[in-house]
Amino acid sequence: MIKIKTPFFIVNPKSYLYGADVIKLAKLADKVSARYDIDCIFTGQLVDLSAIHEAAPNLVLTAQHMDSLKPGRGMGHVLPEALKNIGVQAVVLNHAENPLTIATLDRSINRAKEVGIMSIVCSDTPAQCAAIAEMHPTMMICEPNSLIGTGNISNDEYIEQTNRAIRDVDKNILIMQAAGVSTADDVKKVLGLGADGTGGTSGIIKAPNWEEKLNEMMSAMVDLKES
Amino acid sequence: MIKIKTPFFIVNPKSYLYGADVIKLAKLADKVSARYDIDCIFTGQLVDLSAIHEAAPNLVLTAQHMDSLKPGRGMGHVLPEALKNIGVQAVVLNHAENPLTIATLDRSINRAKEVGIMSIVCSDTPAQCAAIAEMHPTMMICEPNSLIGTGNISNDEYIEQTNRAIRDVDKNILIMQAAGVSTADDVKKVLGLGADGTGGTSGIIKAPNWEEKLNEMMSAMVDLKES
Amino acid sequence: MIKIKTPFFIVNPKSYLYGADVIKLAKLADKVSARYDIDCIFTGQLVDLSAIHEAAPNLVLTAQHMDSLKPGRGMGHVLPEALKNIGVQAVVLNHAENPLTIATLDRSINRAKEVGIMSIVCSDTPAQCAAIAEMHPTMMICEPNSLIGTGNISNDEYIEQTNRAIRDVDKNILIMQAAGVSTADDVKKVLGLGADGTGGTSGIIKAPNWEEKLNEMMSAMVDLKES
Amino acid sequence: MIKIKTPFFIVNPKSYLYGADVIKLAKLADKVSARYDIDCIFTGQLVDLSAIHEAAPNLVLTAQHMDSLKPGRGMGHVLPEALKNIGVQAVVLNHAENPLTIATLDRSINRAKEVGIMSIVCSDTPAQCAAIAEMHPTMMICEPNSLIGTGNISNDEYIEQTNRAIRDVDKNILIMQAAGVSTADDVKKVLGLGADGTGGTSGIIKAPNWEEKLNEMMSAMVDLKES
Repeated sequence: MIKIKTPFFIVNPKSYLYGADVIKLAKLADKVSARYDIDCIFTGQLVDLSAIHEAAPNLVLTAQHMDSLKPGRGMGHVLPEALKNIGVQAVVLNHAENPLTIATLDRSINRAKEVGIMSIVCSDTPAQCAAIAEMHPTMMICEPNSLIGTGNISNDEYIEQTNRAIRDVDKNILIMQAAGVSTADDVKKVLGLGADGTGGTSGIIKAPNWEEKLNEMMSAMVDLKES
Repeated sequence: MIKIKTPFFIVNPKSYLYGADVIKLAKLADKVSARYDIDCIFTGQLVDLSAIHEAAPNLVLTAQHMDSLKPGRGMGHVLPEALKNIGVQAVVLNHAENPLTIATLDRSINRAKEVGIMSIVCSDTPAQCAAIAEMHPTMMICEPNSLIGTGNISNDEYIEQTNRAIRDVDKNILIMQAAGVSTADDVKKVLGLGADGTGGTSGIIKAPNWEEKLNEMMSAMVDLKES
Repeated sequence: MIKIKTPFFIVNPKSYLYGADVIKLAKLADKVSARYDIDCIFTGQLVDLSAIHEAAPNLVLTAQHMDSLKPGRGMGHVLPEALKNIGVQAVVLNHAENPLTIATLDRSINRAKEVGIMSIVCSDTPAQCAAIAEMHPTMMICEPNSLIGTGNISNDEYIEQTNRAIRDVDKNILIMQAAGVSTADDVKKVLGLGADGTGGTSGIIKAPNWEEKLNEMMSAMVDLKES
Repeated sequence: MIKIKTPFFIVNPKSYLYGADVIKLAKLADKVSARYDIDCIFTGQLVDLSAIHEAAPNLVLTAQHMDSLKPGRGMGHVLPEALKNIGVQAVVLNHAENPLTIATLDRSINRAKEVGIMSIVCSDTPAQCAAIAEMHPTMMICEPNSLIGTGNISNDEYIEQTNRAIRDVDKNILIMQAAGVSTADDVKKVLGLGADGTGGTSGIIKAPNWEEKLNEMMSAMVDLKES
């Protein structure tokens, strides 16, 4: 598994983009993250991941889902070994739009370790953050379910409580706070409150100029590193 | 919420028994647990819970499932307030035959507290035990999924590891070890290894004489208390 | 299984009511349906069904959900035999708030037949209506998912298309059209368009006077029979 | 959408193969199906589909799953437009290892039509076959759930009943009977009983020589056409 530098960035197009559009965004993310020497996690539709990897080889190629099965039966399931084989380096699990049972999440985190993929697990409340931290994924994304898709940023109390809940259990888990983050100020705020990484979905996708938006957000991370 | 005395016992007929049969078993469990002054958790089909409560009022009346909704829409969902209203004192959540997502389990444990019902959460691996303990249910049942329905008892290492995983997070959670427990010796073994409670399903249901079996298992708990 | 007279009525309190409140509504439904000699399907929380049956024995006692398992393992599942045993006469399946896979619905309809319970299956589009009719439940409820909880009544085209989709497959299935029905005029409209039954949830629960509302709606059915 | 010639063949590696292995099998299937001028449906892991298409352009490129969402939110979901964009021509839905609710299957079949992908829906009992046929997918695969993974072929009665159940509803749906099919005789048998296509998973994957096995099975289809 690769080792991520902090602060790092995530571009998560969910199901908003595919094909030529997601390749275009990936190339821009590759270029801008190289400019600022920032590790950039980038997700895409499973069928597009190979092409994203080829077009933007410096991005941390990331799947939006993975199942926990081993090679064998399992129709329509996402096989960890198949992801690893095409260069996938990380997988997002337990997003509110794709929640997992505790037993499945436990197995999936272990399977990710087994095949050498970083696990990035989404979480809502501080109690859920602590619970998930006990299963020791590589990273976590804290996002209050009530804010998903609203464009509103998490309040300070939520960010501080969830960071603490995770760190009290396992200091080595990298933490992303990304709910509603869409400006340089948002980036500085959440990193200032202790997050290791940030980024976004609609804040980037819906910006009139993707390169400018990526530049605005990633340059804010550098300002912070240098200050 | 009531306060459970340790060591305590659980009789969990799952979907094996209903109607007159489950009432018969409940009356026997009520009688035998009174004889040994043991708190006895007893589950049943939701439609039978009122009748069980009336026939065996000293049992800790327990539902096998509950949803996390509040009064309102929700067709076919199990409303916490409706359980509390008929005298339900505890609910089992996250059984391997009925697994929950982390977000749902978090909400259900909180709803149980809200309405005054004890939450009893099932768990498999030590990592899952620690994770669930972070959400602070009243009790936990540790059972390796691979053993469910086999009639085999958990090995010592599993029992010790899961007890420790839970206690390291929250000392106040009561722990049941019940996988494959079906004899006086089994009861003594798991309590000797640190469990607060034990009991069973098929070990009891399939015994030729229910009263004798309950007597054998519960008397073993008293021997242990007195030794 | 009992034989339902048409036109019939349904009162479906979902998770809005429990305990004393649902008993009160059941008694009123029992009284008003007796007054007009109308068969009245009445649902409730599983834990309340016994008490509803005792308080209002003429209602068609109906569960809001049922699983397809047979007596045995199955923690937290709703056993058909346990329902039948306490007097349940019908079960609602596949509500939009509790959707089933095709294989599960097929098994559940068959289990209902096996134990002598009427199956009432919810459906959305005309294509889904035809599909479900091929599995031959006792009754169907047609409700556009987009209208659930809105208080709006289905338009004529939807009612006619779904009625036809079902009758083209199986003329013996009784059809309820109940989306947004809450007045005497609504009742006359949907029965006039060919439904065998109607009724409601929020249109009844939220009425200031339950008895008056039930009287208004059920008397409209009689007017129609006599006209 | 393309038009499939009958009799056609399916190679469905599920999660048994990925990467170089699935490419190797795809090339052989491409070669052998060209030899006999047979349309060959070929599935693979989503991340491998682009590479399969490039290596074996004559195969009917097929996804093992698809969601019904439209471009937008939807983390970890499989977007129909993203499949179409990389050349996917068909998608398998409702496999017993990935069952769908009726509402979701209805939406997914419609979304497949919308984007120009053939829908191939799996089914178990004759009642389920008729139900699914009412939603008019392009093709259906009949497979008794009890046989999946056993290597046993469906009996004549099952094949005839399910063929009839589908054809009575919609004569245009192409029917595959593939449970346990692994020899030239199996192929002749199921096509002789009226299926439009056949093929397999473990019968092919586990054969000592993939090319010989594909040759044996596909040549049997030609014999039949010519006889």
